[in-house]
Amino acid sequence: LQTKLPAVGTTIFTVMSALAAEKNAVNLGQGFPDFNCDPQLLQAVTDAMAAGHNQYPPMPGILPLREAVAAKIETLYGHRYDAQSEITVTAGATQAIITAILAVVRPGDEVIVLEPCYDSYVPNIELAGGTVVRVPLTPGSFRPDFAKIAAALTPRTRAIIINTPHNPSATVWTEAEMRQLEDLLAPTDVLVISDEVYEHMVYTGARHESAARFPGLAARSFIVSSFGKTYHVTGWKVGYVAAPAALSAEFRKVHQFNVFTVNTPMQHALARYMADPAPYLELPAFYQRKRDLFAAGLAKTRFKLLPSAGTYFQCVDISELSELGESDFCQWLTREIGVAAIPLSAFYGDGFDQRVVRFCFAKKDETLQLAIERLARL
Amino acid sequence: LQTKLPAVGTTIFTVMSALAAEKNAVNLGQGFPDFNCDPQLLQAVTDAMAAGHNQYPPMPGILPLREAVAAKIETLYGHRYDAQSEITVTAGATQAIITAILAVVRPGDEVIVLEPCYDSYVPNIELAGGTVVRVPLTPGSFRPDFAKIAAALTPRTRAIIINTPHNPSATVWTEAEMRQLEDLLAPTDVLVISDEVYEHMVYTGARHESAARFPGLAARSFIVSSFGKTYHVTGWKVGYVAAPAALSAEFRKVHQFNVFTVNTPMQHALARYMADPAPYLELPAFYQRKRDLFAAGLAKTRFKLLPSAGTYFQCVDISELSELGESDFCQWLTREIGVAAIPLSAFYGDGFDQRVVRFCFAKKDETLQLAIERLARL
Ligand SMILES: CSCCC(=O)C(=O)O
Ligand SMILES: CSCCC(=O)C(=O)O
Repeated sequence: LQTKLPAVGTTIFTVMSALAAEKNAVNLGQGFPDFNCDPQLLQAVTDAMAAGHNQYPPMPGILPLREAVAAKIETLYGHRYDAQSEITVTAGATQAIITAILAVVRPGDEVIVLEPCYDSYVPNIELAGGTVVRVPLTPGSFRPDFAKIAAALTPRTRAIIINTPHNPSATVWTEAEMRQLEDLLAPTDVLVISDEVYEHMVYTGARHESAARFPGLAARSFIVSSFGKTYHVTGWKVGYVAAPAALSAEFRKVHQFNVFTVNTPMQHALARYMADPAPYLELPAFYQRKRDLFAAGLAKTRFKLLPSAGTYFQCVDISELSELGESDFCQWLTREIGVAAIPLSAFYGDGFDQRVVRFCFAKKDETLQLAIERLARL
Repeated sequence: LQTKLPAVGTTIFTVMSALAAEKNAVNLGQGFPDFNCDPQLLQAVTDAMAAGHNQYPPMPGILPLREAVAAKIETLYGHRYDAQSEITVTAGATQAIITAILAVVRPGDEVIVLEPCYDSYVPNIELAGGTVVRVPLTPGSFRPDFAKIAAALTPRTRAIIINTPHNPSATVWTEAEMRQLEDLLAPTDVLVISDEVYEHMVYTGARHESAARFPGLAARSFIVSSFGKTYHVTGWKVGYVAAPAALSAEFRKVHQFNVFTVNTPMQHALARYMADPAPYLELPAFYQRKRDLFAAGLAKTRFKLLPSAGTYFQCVDISELSELGESDFCQWLTREIGVAAIPLSAFYGDGFDQRVVRFCFAKKDETLQLAIERLARL
């Protein structure tokens, strides 16, 4: 068999989670909680199933869930989406992103990604026949460099993918930065895919600047988010995309022939659960406490902490405690110390190694304590 | 916005289900049951959620479910797949098919489809940049025409998509036909995507001839099936693909960047539920009774029944009772008579109209009776 995709390996998250399981390491690699979600959310699934909600839902998702999403976005970010024509429920954020790309990127189109970036973007663009244009975030600070982005724009640019709060760096774009992007794109037809899956995990001193807040961006954006991240149910694989009607129509052309539709009982449960905004309003405080707990523990180790303004990730500089490259370090840390982490190099096309690795702190306090004990041995 | 996909409309299943809901018609259009699944299967989901199975499962699916699938295939079809490397759990069969296509079809490759065929195949191939080669099934009988298939093979043929039991015609390929395909492809490198979602719905006089039964086909096939169809949970969106390790490896390269993985609690529930083969072994008798009930009712109407050897569909000839084309007839039948059906023309690229429409009989007996009463008015 001649492979079509010689360059594609296995995603780093699968590789590190498998190694962590094999070595019985504390898995601070792949981003998911090790605690269960609210029992009320589970009860809502059980109720939905008993009520017979087990057959195909409408292709774009059940309307009550789309209405709940539209209401949330309007309340938080002040932009009104039409639930009927502008919100689509997806099988997780990853499926939302590939579907948006397949729907709009034509062979030969250029798509700008800001590195480091999530590892599905580049293969997604390549599957659509697009050309990937990599623009680095500013080394060290991970802030967008608008001179570099401007220089990357060409008449062939079809889209740019942005991500705030940012995985893996845990930076959060400022209002000024979003405005700069809005201004830069104003004279163009460039579309935006805005990956906002960590929208509800932003800590003191920062605010989530959704593309929905900026009319010039909202009009050209697919805004992607994840119920899995927000409600501690990453395994349910339910997300959504919000986009103007014309973009949503294109999105649905592909969505209907990709997954067709998304798990019915989970959609009903999430619609019911979203009636109360408390769970996502309380999320920043919930995770900020975990961030601080983990950071306080790490402060006693030889890791140098980078700032974490959002997401549930904490990056650390390893340059003073090891000679190893990031990838070897993560392997060694998992095997020998019993803590799994993710090398930032996995988020770069050329494997750029800045001696920084990423930990996930979406874990029970005991799990974080155990990890800290082990890391303190270094 | 310049559309990338000017030819793609909304799938017929969404259009007819929306119309049926609006007109309060009996929906015998889109293929899904109107009864609930086994409560034991629902209990298994509730138990899995309570046990904390709500986070990302392994990328190819949880091993117990893959093992259950491999065991089922071996028992029924005599072919042993390695659960670890050859079975992948998907977000429904539709996602399995697009993923297989994106994984192997390169721009310019030709892919043979046998018309009439399910409406996602063609857009899927086009998204991959492939060229669709349409070969008609024999008009009237819907049997494969191997002279025509042979004539369509070229050095650029990358794959052929087959589907048995066949949607929409309700025919089932014979052992001799599968062997003919095996022989025809023997001297080639052509891959097979074998859509077998109705594998457990085959009625007296026929047997499901899975590609897995034929070594020359199994070695080159992605075999796709659906837990949703088999267990009356179409809204759960869980299916699988079985393929030799080399093909599965290519499949997973795309799967990980499409949906990444599939609903965790449903996977656990299905794995537990599959320990008992009775539900799928009893399915033919269950649906054959419904088929016969529906056919007996239709015999008193002016519809002319086509044979239904498998699937949960019954096709009927409308040429003697209406002047309308299939599509107009289905609209009229839904609006005026209160029964929704699907025009076969929706399964042809050129909208070929042979005056045949498709009913789904996966319905409660009362639903079928109500539909028959209404159809008897014609
Ligand atoms: C989809 S698996 C990876 C989870 C995640 O978002 C991450 O770890 O970065
Ligand atoms: C995925 S929606 C359509 C269901 C189905 O398989 C059919 O009606 O043919």
